[in-house]
This record gives sequence, C-alpha cells and structure tokens, in this order.
Amino acid sequence: MDKNQPSSTFTDVDRDMMQRCLSLARKALGRTAPNPLVGAVIVQDRQIVGEGFHPGAGQPHAEVFALRAAGDRAQGATIYVNLEPCNHYGRTPPCSEALVAAQVAKVVVGMVDPDPRVSGGGIARLQAAGIEVVVGVEEADCRQLNEAFIHRILYQQPLGILKYAMTLDGKIATNNGHSAWITAELARNEVHQLRAACDAVIIGGNTLRKDNPQLTTRQTDAPQPLRVVMSLSLDLPEQAYLWQTTAAPTLVLTTVGAKPDFQQRLLAKGVKVVELAPLSPKEAMNYLYSLGLMSVLWECGGTLAASAISQGAVQKVLAFIAPKIIGGSMAPSPVGELGFTSMTQAIVLERLRWRSVGDDCLVEGYIPIEQKPTIELPQ
Amino acid sequence: MDKNQPSSTFTDVDRDMMQRCLSLARKALGRTAPNPLVGAVIVQDRQIVGEGFHPGAGQPHAEVFALRAAGDRAQGATIYVNLEPCNHYGRTPPCSEALVAAQVAKVVVGMVDPDPRVSGGGIARLQAAGIEVVVGVEEADCRQLNEAFIHRILYQQPLGILKYAMTLDGKIATNNGHSAWITAELARNEVHQLRAACDAVIIGGNTLRKDNPQLTTRQTDAPQPLRVVMSLSLDLPEQAYLWQTTAAPTLVLTTVGAKPDFQQRLLAKGVKVVELAPLSPKEAMNYLYSLGLMSVLWECGGTLAASAISQGAVQKVLAFIAPKIIGGSMAPSPVGELGFTSMTQAIVLERLRWRSVGDDCLVEGYIPIEQKPTIELPQ
Repeated sequence: MDKNQPSSTFTDVDRDMMQRCLSLARKALGRTAPNPLVGAVIVQDRQIVGEGFHPGAGQPHAEVFALRAAGDRAQGATIYVNLEPCNHYGRTPPCSEALVAAQVAKVVVGMVDPDPRVSGGGIARLQAAGIEVVVGVEEADCRQLNEAFIHRILYQQPLGILKYAMTLDGKIATNNGHSAWITAELARNEVHQLRAACDAVIIGGNTLRKDNPQLTTRQTDAPQPLRVVMSLSLDLPEQAYLWQTTAAPTLVLTTVGAKPDFQQRLLAKGVKVVELAPLSPKEAMNYLYSLGLMSVLWECGGTLAASAISQGAVQKVLAFIAPKIIGGSMAPSPVGELGFTSMTQAIVLERLRWRSVGDDCLVEGYIPIEQKPTIELPQ
Repeated sequence: MDKNQPSSTFTDVDRDMMQRCLSLARKALGRTAPNPLVGAVIVQDRQIVGEGFHPGAGQPHAEVFALRAAGDRAQGATIYVNLEPCNHYGRTPPCSEALVAAQVAKVVVGMVDPDPRVSGGGIARLQAAGIEVVVGVEEADCRQLNEAFIHRILYQQPLGILKYAMTLDGKIATNNGHSAWITAELARNEVHQLRAACDAVIIGGNTLRKDNPQLTTRQTDAPQPLRVVMSLSLDLPEQAYLWQTTAAPTLVLTTVGAKPDFQQRLLAKGVKVVELAPLSPKEAMNYLYSLGLMSVLWECGGTLAASAISQGAVQKVLAFIAPKIIGGSMAPSPVGELGFTSMTQAIVLERLRWRSVGDDCLVEGYIPIEQKPTIELPQ
C-alpha cells in the first residue's frame, strides 16, 4: 500500500464525495467523544446509494449506516470514508469485515488511523480481500476535522483550545473587569458554535465571580459542553448560572478538603465536585482525559490562561479581536505571566489563519508542540 | 455644475487615467506639506501627450508640468487631475487660467477642493470659459490619498495617526520593556514606508529612554519625517540616535524653562527645542500645524497614546498584530488610561480594513470625529 499517493491521482468526484463525508461527519460535532467524527458515502454508477455518519460512542460506525442504506447496491460500489475503517472488535464488529461482506469494489479513505500501532490494519484487511483502496483524499481537511481526536490518541490528552476576545488595544475587560461585550453578535454566535463542538469549557473562580457566565451554546438542539470551574479556595458565590445544571452539566475542580459544606451544597444542586492534587491545568486535563473528553475550551482570564499555556494544556489559540479601543492602565490582557523577559522568547503560533467575523477578526493558530507523542510506537 | 454625477457616467478610460494621476501624485508622498498630492495626465486622441505631478510646496502644480509636456497637443485635449485645479494666485498663477489658455476641451476632476469656502471656484472658471468639466472620478481613492491634506484644511490640525505593534495577547513589550521585534521584517518595512509618507513622527521620553529609536525610513532616497520627542522633564540621555540630525531633523517639545543647559547641548547638535505651555498632545499638534505639517505619526507608548487620543490628536489607528504570545503581568499594552469603566464606552473604529502583512496583520480604522470642521463655512 502506498500511503503517499500524489493528490493528482484523485478525481474531482473523489474530492467532492470526501467533502460530503466530512459534512455528514460534522452532524455529530460535539457528541462523539472519545470517538472520531466520521461520515461515509457509497457511490454506485455515479449515484449516491447510501450514506451515514457516526452519531456517538456506543452507536454504529458511519460505514454501517451507509451499508444499511445501500443494501444490495453496495456490491461492486465505491465507499468513501474520511477515516480508515476500523479492524477490531469493540462495541461493534470491525467495519473492514462489514465492507468485505458487502463486497464493495473500492474504498476511498481520507486518512489512516492516527494511532501508529493500529493504523493501516483496516486498509490491509480490505486489500487482502481484493478490495481496491485509495488513501489521502482531502487529507488535510480530514485531519482538521478530527484534530482533537488525533491529539487525544497521540498525546493521551484532550486538545486544549484557548479562546479569548480582546479589544484592538489588547484588553479583555475594563479596569474594573467589565467585559460585556467586546465582540459583536456574529463573533459571539461563533463562540456558541465553538462550545457546541467542544467537550468541555473551563474557567477559573475569578471569571465565575466577575462574569457569572452561562457557558452554554444558547441552542436547545446543540450539544452542551461540560462546564468546568477550577477553584483552589472554593470561594465561589452560592448563586450562579453554572449551578443550574438542567441547561448543561457542571464540574468543579478544587483542592483536597476545600470547604466541604460548600461542596455538599453544590452536590445537592447537581454539580459534580472533584478534588485534584495538585489542582493545576495539567491535572485538570488528565482528569478530563480520563472522562473520555477530546477537546477542552479554555475561556478563562489571563492568569489561568498563562498557567495552562505553561503546563502544555493549550495547543490551539482562537483570538477574537474587536476593532475598538478601551484603554485602562489596570485593564487585564488575555495572557498573564509566562516569565519571558525578551521578545525573542515569545511563543510564535503556527498554521495561522486570519478571518473576518463581521467587524471583528478571528485569529487561529497553534502553539508548537515540542513533546513527542506519548503512545508507544511500533517497532 | 452637478457635483454628484453618478459614477456610471464615467468610462473605464476615465478611471484608468485618474488612477494614473494618483500614481503620479504618490511620487511626492511625504514631500508636499502643506500642499496636496496631485497628479495630472493629458490625453489627446486616446494617447497620453503629457503628465506631471506636484513635487512640493513652492514648485509648480501638476497641471503645469503636464501642460509643459503636452505643448500644443493640449489644445482640444482632455486633462485628468485628482484635485480641482486652483483658481487663485499663490506662489504660482492659477491652474484654471493655464488650462483656459492652453485651450483644453475637457477637464476630468477626481474631487473638488476640500475647503468649502473655495471649492468649485476652479471648476466654475473652467466652465465659464466653455470647457467641459467632469467631477468625481475615483473620488474615494482621491480622498484617501489626500486624507491628511483634507483633514488639515477642515480641522486646522494635522491628521494624527497612532501606529503600534502588539503581540496577539495585546502586549507592546515584555515586563521589562523589551520589544525588538514584535512584528516580522515585512511589517517593519511597511512602517518605514509609512514614516516616509508622514510629515512627523512623535514619541515620548519613555520610548526614547527604553528603545533609543532611529525613527527614520531606512531609505536614502525617501523623505525623512521630522522626528519629535515630547518630554516634560527633559530627563533624556546625552547620546541618542535622535540627536544625530544628519539622517533626519529632530524636534524636542518640552515645558517652559526645562533644563536650559541640556537644551543648549541639544541645540549644539542641531536639534530644535521648543517650549510649549502646556506641553500636551493638543498643543504639540497645534505647533506642528503652524509648521505646515499635514500628517503626524504617533509611535509612542501607551501613556502618551491615551493622552493623544483623549485630546483628539489621533484620528486614525494602524495596529500591527503579530501572531505570538509573550505574556507578562506587567507587560505594557498599546493604550493607557482613557477613564472608561464600561465596555460600552469603548471607541469603536470606523472604516475598518484588516490586511495580512506577511504573518502579521494590519488593522486600519478611524476614530469617529464628533468635532465640526473649524473653518468657516460659506453662507
């Protein structure tokens, strides 16, 4: 198998069908953790005869839905799928076997399984059964859609995304902490969509005390992220939107033995409380990984953001910049102390994208990862 | 005369020739104050038979150079010029008379004279002589090129432009003031070009002490702006790039009676020193207006920038944003205290443009002007 087929061998139909897989996959955005987002399309005689997507953990894979829809028409057909079909028995039988049984003629794969210990297994099984396999169609887009899944597999950590909104003069609030609103409605809507796509949103106690945020997606049909508050002291208000757990679940992370009475009152309201030792962004990410989460959105203030960056809990930065000037000699900025004294020490973001969102601007970039994948590589 | 001809009446040739006028006009960028940037093109039988631009105060106007180049071929020709031809005797005779004498058939004007007391006069004179006049071709671009000239005429103040470079987390330096470099070379080159287009660059004493900047255009053939330092105390270093006045002139603005000995030593080095009462951004702009300057670039730190904004000395903001994170709980941000407590008080910039400059981003916008033009309007 040649994993590095030149993209010139792919047809426009290949690319269109793979993009359709990605669109299908996106229907389950925010609902699949710890599973990937996968869509599948079956094409017979230039017609789509079946399609599907993976709706969430414990449910059938995308290929199964597509095969069900296609029925007999899967025989001799081409199936497109954005991720290599699985080749192991989990909660469902392996998709590779289902494809062999359905006698498809060709499988077009967006990207191989990110886990180097198992990647290629599904493809090898298909090829052994005489099925033609093409790999790498729209691979960059496939990787982008499942970046959190890939990161979780390779680093055994959720993908950390730091999101903030600041004025054009670099402030996230006024001198006295007022911040409603920095960006316009279009950008705020985008944040709600972003929350729906993430598995958890984290803030610190300061943000809770100052902003009393809801951290919801503001949409009844969208998935709600787990709302997480990190607080050393548990010096938090008795009443807060986050304690209303009918809208979305809330988790409070604190230190061992912090204010047991308050913890009890939170539990009574349906808030989960977990004591971590030590309470740190790194430990928080470890704990959220253990829950099966793939993506964690840091919507915290500058102090916690700096700590999260320092501890490697942030891989991606989403900065909304509003074209306004607020000033303020004590006004907070998005990232606190990182201990850098020279501008040459700055963290230079990679894979940049600048994009207009109404009158605001969204800057997207990645913090270079120096760490090697934590999983064992095959010999 | 209909000043508001619909743009659909303009031909592609009209627009092309007007853009050519603007290109010619730009050759004198940074050299014409207090005069506008003007280019002229004469077209006879679809051929350019003469063109020219105004090189600077005291020298002939663009129309004169174009008429000289065209000679007899100006008779019956069309002349394009981005600003209404003048109709008064200054250091040179009125261009309207020269065009009448040359017997041009048609004059295509980008924009009328911005001074409402005289605007339309040149056009009326041409029409009285039986010459066809068309007004408003590429008017937005014509106004943009001469925005500083227009502002100076209407408000009797130079146009103030605040320029800064900040990191994606809103810092203009590290905790200890280190700032070399925030943006990459492409953006820094753009700043050098910006300086060449401005008549003066202003910093405060703090920036001089911390950065010891050159504030030059780094090009031998480009015009150098007047370099201005505002310092209350004159507590400035004896040695500084700004005291080397062979590269570019330097002006120090200070308070009455500040450190006379130091003033003498500056004078001996060719630095001009002026005492203002009070020393403020507003007074500085008044003084620079009196020197005939049109555009002033504020390249100062946050404290002086805030003061300049508060006093109406800034109309335009140019923010370079670098895709890097530096952090720093004491790191300075681009604008200091404006006295705002609520985010709703923020100054919302108008006429926004976001543009990539290499990996950096340049945001351009205007501070809404509430003030009415200071000149007397005609009855």
